Amino acid sequence: MIGHSCFGNDAWNLPEQRLELELLPHTESLFALSNGHIGWRGTLDEGEPHGLPGTYLNGVHELHPLPYAEAGYGYPESGQTVINVTNGKIIRLMVDDEPFDVRYGTLVSHERCLDLKSGVLRRDVVWTSPTGRTVRIRSTRLVSLTQRAIAAVRYEVEPLDGPARIVLQSELVANEELPHRHDDPRAAAMLQDPLVNDIHSIGDTRITLVHTVRHSGLRVAAAMDHTIELVTKNDGEHSDPDALGVHIEAEADLGRYTVGGVVQPGQTVRLTKFVAYGWSATRSLPAMRDQVDGALAVAMLGMGWDTLCAEQRDCLAEFWERSDVEIEGDADIQQAVRFALFQLLQSARRAEQRAIPAKGLTGSGYDGHAFWDTESFVLHVLTYVDAPSVAHALRWRHSTLPTARERAAQLGLKGCAFPWRTITGQECSAYWPAGTAAFHIDADIADAVIRYLRVTGDVEFAHKEGMELLVETARLWQSLGHMDEAGAFRIAGVTGPDEYSAIVDNNIYTNLMAQQNLLRAADVVDHHPGHAATLGASAAESAAWRKSANAMFIPYDEMRDVHPQSDGFTDHELWDFENTPPEHYPLLLRYPYFQLYRKQVVKQADLVLALHMRSDAFTLEQKQRDFDYYEPLTVRDSSLSACSQAVVAAEVGCTQLAYDYLAEAALMDIDDLERNTSDGLHLASLAGAWIALVDGFGGLRHTDDGLSFAPQLPKGWTRLCFGLVLGDGHLRVDVRPDDVEYLYSGKEPYEVRHGDTLLRLEPGTPVTRPLTPPKERPGPSQPAGRAPLRRAHDVVRATT
Amino acid sequence: MIGHSCFGNDAWNLPEQRLELELLPHTESLFALSNGHIGWRGTLDEGEPHGLPGTYLNGVHELHPLPYAEAGYGYPESGQTVINVTNGKIIRLMVDDEPFDVRYGTLVSHERCLDLKSGVLRRDVVWTSPTGRTVRIRSTRLVSLTQRAIAAVRYEVEPLDGPARIVLQSELVANEELPHRHDDPRAAAMLQDPLVNDIHSIGDTRITLVHTVRHSGLRVAAAMDHTIELVTKNDGEHSDPDALGVHIEAEADLGRYTVGGVVQPGQTVRLTKFVAYGWSATRSLPAMRDQVDGALAVAMLGMGWDTLCAEQRDCLAEFWERSDVEIEGDADIQQAVRFALFQLLQSARRAEQRAIPAKGLTGSGYDGHAFWDTESFVLHVLTYVDAPSVAHALRWRHSTLPTARERAAQLGLKGCAFPWRTITGQECSAYWPAGTAAFHIDADIADAVIRYLRVTGDVEFAHKEGMELLVETARLWQSLGHMDEAGAFRIAGVTGPDEYSAIVDNNIYTNLMAQQNLLRAADVVDHHPGHAATLGASAAESAAWRKSANAMFIPYDEMRDVHPQSDGFTDHELWDFENTPPEHYPLLLRYPYFQLYRKQVVKQADLVLALHMRSDAFTLEQKQRDFDYYEPLTVRDSSLSACSQAVVAAEVGCTQLAYDYLAEAALMDIDDLERNTSDGLHLASLAGAWIALVDGFGGLRHTDDGLSFAPQLPKGWTRLCFGLVLGDGHLRVDVRPDDVEYLYSGKEPYEVRHGDTLLRLEPGTPVTRPLTPPKERPGPSQPAGRAPLRRAHDVVRATT
Repeated sequence: MIGHSCFGNDAWNLPEQRLELELLPHTESLFALSNGHIGWRGTLDEGEPHGLPGTYLNGVHELHPLPYAEAGYGYPESGQTVINVTNGKIIRLMVDDEPFDVRYGTLVSHERCLDLKSGVLRRDVVWTSPTGRTVRIRSTRLVSLTQRAIAAVRYEVEPLDGPARIVLQSELVANEELPHRHDDPRAAAMLQDPLVNDIHSIGDTRITLVHTVRHSGLRVAAAMDHTIELVTKNDGEHSDPDALGVHIEAEADLGRYTVGGVVQPGQTVRLTKFVAYGWSATRSLPAMRDQVDGALAVAMLGMGWDTLCAEQRDCLAEFWERSDVEIEGDADIQQAVRFALFQLLQSARRAEQRAIPAKGLTGSGYDGHAFWDTESFVLHVLTYVDAPSVAHALRWRHSTLPTARERAAQLGLKGCAFPWRTITGQECSAYWPAGTAAFHIDADIADAVIRYLRVTGDVEFAHKEGMELLVETARLWQSLGHMDEAGAFRIAGVTGPDEYSAIVDNNIYTNLMAQQNLLRAADVVDHHPGHAATLGASAAESAAWRKSANAMFIPYDEMRDVHPQSDGFTDHELWDFENTPPEHYPLLLRYPYFQLYRKQVVKQADLVLALHMRSDAFTLEQKQRDFDYYEPLTVRDSSLSACSQAVVAAEVGCTQLAYDYLAEAALMDIDDLERNTSDGLHLASLAGAWIALVDGFGGLRHTDDGLSFAPQLPKGWTRLCFGLVLGDGHLRVDVRPDDVEYLYSGKEPYEVRHGDTLLRLEPGTPVTRPLTPPKERPGPSQPAGRAPLRRAHDVVRATT
Repeated sequence: MIGHSCFGNDAWNLPEQRLELELLPHTESLFALSNGHIGWRGTLDEGEPHGLPGTYLNGVHELHPLPYAEAGYGYPESGQTVINVTNGKIIRLMVDDEPFDVRYGTLVSHERCLDLKSGVLRRDVVWTSPTGRTVRIRSTRLVSLTQRAIAAVRYEVEPLDGPARIVLQSELVANEELPHRHDDPRAAAMLQDPLVNDIHSIGDTRITLVHTVRHSGLRVAAAMDHTIELVTKNDGEHSDPDALGVHIEAEADLGRYTVGGVVQPGQTVRLTKFVAYGWSATRSLPAMRDQVDGALAVAMLGMGWDTLCAEQRDCLAEFWERSDVEIEGDADIQQAVRFALFQLLQSARRAEQRAIPAKGLTGSGYDGHAFWDTESFVLHVLTYVDAPSVAHALRWRHSTLPTARERAAQLGLKGCAFPWRTITGQECSAYWPAGTAAFHIDADIADAVIRYLRVTGDVEFAHKEGMELLVETARLWQSLGHMDEAGAFRIAGVTGPDEYSAIVDNNIYTNLMAQQNLLRAADVVDHHPGHAATLGASAAESAAWRKSANAMFIPYDEMRDVHPQSDGFTDHELWDFENTPPEHYPLLLRYPYFQLYRKQVVKQADLVLALHMRSDAFTLEQKQRDFDYYEPLTVRDSSLSACSQAVVAAEVGCTQLAYDYLAEAALMDIDDLERNTSDGLHLASLAGAWIALVDGFGGLRHTDDGLSFAPQLPKGWTRLCFGLVLGDGHLRVDVRPDDVEYLYSGKEPYEVRHGDTLLRLEPGTPVTRPLTPPKERPGPSQPAGRAPLRRAHDVVRATT
């Protein structure tokens, strides 16, 4: 699928050079705009044709019962699903009574471009209507990173070959009809007409709709307001827009502002639409209405379009200044990693104590749920490039602690048991062997807390939320494991990251992450005994955690001289890869769980993820042997795998393989490698692009001893440069073919390790060291047909 | 719960000496009559009050979708549930316009009695109506063991204190309203009004109703016919019943035959009702109607009530003659084991190539599904006491082979994968870790085949069904296991009998039963190469089976010197029994599966069942150690446990414990020990009473080397005598305090082992040997509060 010829290669843009209708579901996800609060899929302005209409507000969901043919104690009974809220994107156009629809008439040209520096989606179309009138249509769409409640569209129409009667209908639409979805168990459940109208009101140019979500009872308000201009091309002067007729109307599920009139060649009708959104579980109807009307007033009257756009550009400029990744020698990866960073920022910047779902707000896949993806992948990256977003996301987790404590108690455990999948904190996983049993999410959250604190030293967060998260997760492990007669601490009956195994004993990833969790929790309790006491944590408790952590059982297969992913894993039969045809992947759609669970087949990095995340717990020789053992078993039926494989491949000297995995992670969505980008972007894989570059080729590891690097470059690259925001400071790591330059900006000197060497970086003074890449080894093989696409540095995807 | 004072103690009857309304759901199950084809729960003749109305036809079921909040490949989509078919039991009575209802007026006396020799349920009531009229009501109910389609009721009313206007309404009722059932996941799902009427027709005294089950499309026909007599008490002469008025009517879901008139003291109205049932998935409506009308004609006109009753008694006399178990020294157990044998016979005798459900046809518990209970418990016993029923039951399994082959193929396996729970052969288990993964059912079916062939030598069955069952189940194991690099054959990812563990590796019970399955299948293939060839089985295939069987991996915990139930089991944390209050049992209703699975807690005999079923695979010392290890972990939250524990307890010298477990198995239903006998009888536990007696105290084991015994008696017993039907022969084993007498009847001499001694039994010549009971050992402990009730030989349950 690599190389959709409709995407141009551009370092700062994702351009689509012609419209391919069958790619609409895919491009709607790629061109989605979001600020973490509002999400607008990249549907065409006129609403159709479409793949999946999608307007999301972070946290707005509907409830539905979770059915079980055979119930069991502690099964979650209520599910949550993100819903498509009021669509404010739609602007319909009629040209001489012909509706503009790309499927009819002649599409002379159709270009779209996601501008990563400006943070807008642009569209430029020349269309000849079925009756022969040609018009140019340009639109610019923005979801504001600075004005949390605001999105806007500027829409311009210019007749090219004669006067045309132009009618524009700007709409707010609730309860849009959604397409029937496929039966893939991973695709979102659909819910019919979830919005019940409370208010529909109109002003001169403004319409406000307030709805209540039928079962969850959440209130959703949306309002739009408009400016209309008639611009004369040659002198740029504005004609009198009063020459255009205007009509405004609203009903329960529809608001419509209509402008129309005859427009001459050389004249452009310019409609600027401001949309405000708000939602609440508690606020009253009038308050909700005032909230969106107020936001609109600020954005439209106080700021206006140009200011909104300028703020957006400034915000991004600051981001790129500190956090850009520059690559020389691979234009595709350069584009892809910037796209990835842009989408990560979009998913998180204004999420503000809401979850960051696995697909952000770019689609309804996975029901809009957040998983461990957030902490283990998305926050892993954001910690170094946009740490305040991480604090927000972890504060959201912290806000769900009461629910997680209840869940732990229901399960007979201490501390907190965070949900495998959720919107508000309630467990929504209806298949516990791959949900509830995946307790590693507790350690993953703790790991994100630990990383955030290492990077930022944020004392307020540490005291307010950080310690409690570490303490409560440590309590879970202490109650989940047990000390056996021989003095080993064992954790039985859990599911690790690899979803092709379940309910196993002593999953090494889980045990090692729990070990770190217990030790770091013990540290904070010991260092802050007074504050710890408010959480009921004592030195005796922390001592017990240390004892468990230090006794953590890590199974080892002496016969095969490798780490088994979990007890007995390496005794299992090998999956019959040779007789598994390519169309049988992903395996979970073609084989029963029971077969997957009982054989040596790995959906996604698990032991290999442990090699990355707990790099300190393995020798290089162990990493090499383990990597060589698991590679031929790993089918990568999950997008949460390639980046970890890239990181370890790079470390153990399989540089080409690391490069191939990097490309897979980075191009997952742009090239739709899993053919489900239509459901929304794979945020974790986007994060994985950065992880593969920075942890992989940069060799970044972060422990209590600080940051360390072991940089190397893929063959053919001449540069990899990345910036890390470290609290008040900033570190730029610039890897060249022969050396690496570390440049730290900040108040105090900063120490990092370059390989085995400790470097003291004085602010503003670059330090250069030669590269000492690992000895290159032949890479292990992958299951038949499941090797990553081989990437050559001099082959870029076809462009038009 | 031991000792409901309403049950009298009687060696050949289960009498209820007064009516206790709150026990109705319980007694409806105890007093259920069945022949394996028709099942009538023991509801009162007048229909109410009732616990659960229940009329079942073996195989008649409704379909319903199985919902999954998260679907998975290979999950069964359609469930099957036994339905309550047309109720032909009802006879309503009015006395002077007052309906007879035990809740109103005065119940002077109310006795019921299940007569184990006559095979009828008798009732004898004296009732004074609210208006003061006293009548005697007697009824006798029968489901014919000899006339498969026929049930009948004789109902008599006699005014005691003056003339009364008596009206009798004999009914056929379809789509009875059923009570709401509790949420216990094990209780049957209820389905509303499943019957759609096709025919309702009336004759002079006959009504026929034919219905179609809404979704399954099965046709169900029921017909009733009547005789009416007016009997004068003193001379026994019949008055003219024409003095009574008669009315007959039918509509879609109701047939009603009404008889009424004034009856004098000394006169008895006697209504005899014959009911015929039939069902078919294929036969036409007229054929169905003719079928039941024909059956009625034979029963009523050709035979009549007295002949029906005489046949029933003769049939049972023959059964008891050969298969009775006699006990001296414990009247309760004597009564209980006869009740058990009677109910086993009822469940199976005329099942004729239909399943024997876990609850027979005595209730709708477990949706009327058959499980491994059938082969491992019910057929285990029936093989020695009513072998033709076993052939029928195994022919039913054989008839489902095409479905089981499809299921195996769907699961990626060879051979056949029999369903965990089913009515027709389709897998109906919606929770695969405790369903599909419990592949041991294949070996259990093979074990039943092996046992049946050992006992009967039935060559026709061996060639037609037996070999194919053995071959196809062996193929499953060969594909399910794998030979590891070290030459051990491992079976991973299965669930053994203990449902508090799941998806484990190398469950010892499963591996040992699979080993037997593979070896015996290899034997039949090698001994009958020509016939085997028709199944595609060759010497090469059987050699492969032998290789796997001989390499079967049996884990052993060297540190603790016991067999782990499965890999790693003994490394798990112990369940916290001390802090588990009594009301938290059964644990599955109060703890999540994930906790049960990851700890050392055993729902039901698993390794201990292996000690029993594969007694030959363990030394006595191993049995002692293993039994001592698992007893403190076993909570017996399943009725499939006590009997196996009794058997092994007896073998390892824990005689009192064996006795206690015997009592629990034997009294499970009579004393409602699990408080769910209302859903139907626990057939496996009823079978367990016999198993505990014969395999336990009789020490019966049956291998390729033949039958062996190691008899002993519980303290205080003076006799245990049981009969085994062995093909054309019969063996009576009569255990007395000091010796045992073996008496074989048959044509050829028969060899058995008494302990280590081989005895050659000449037909008709008793052989006596002294008892050599095992050295008595102190029994191991059980989880807190979960020890069986201690039974003393001189304490019998309270009787009135």
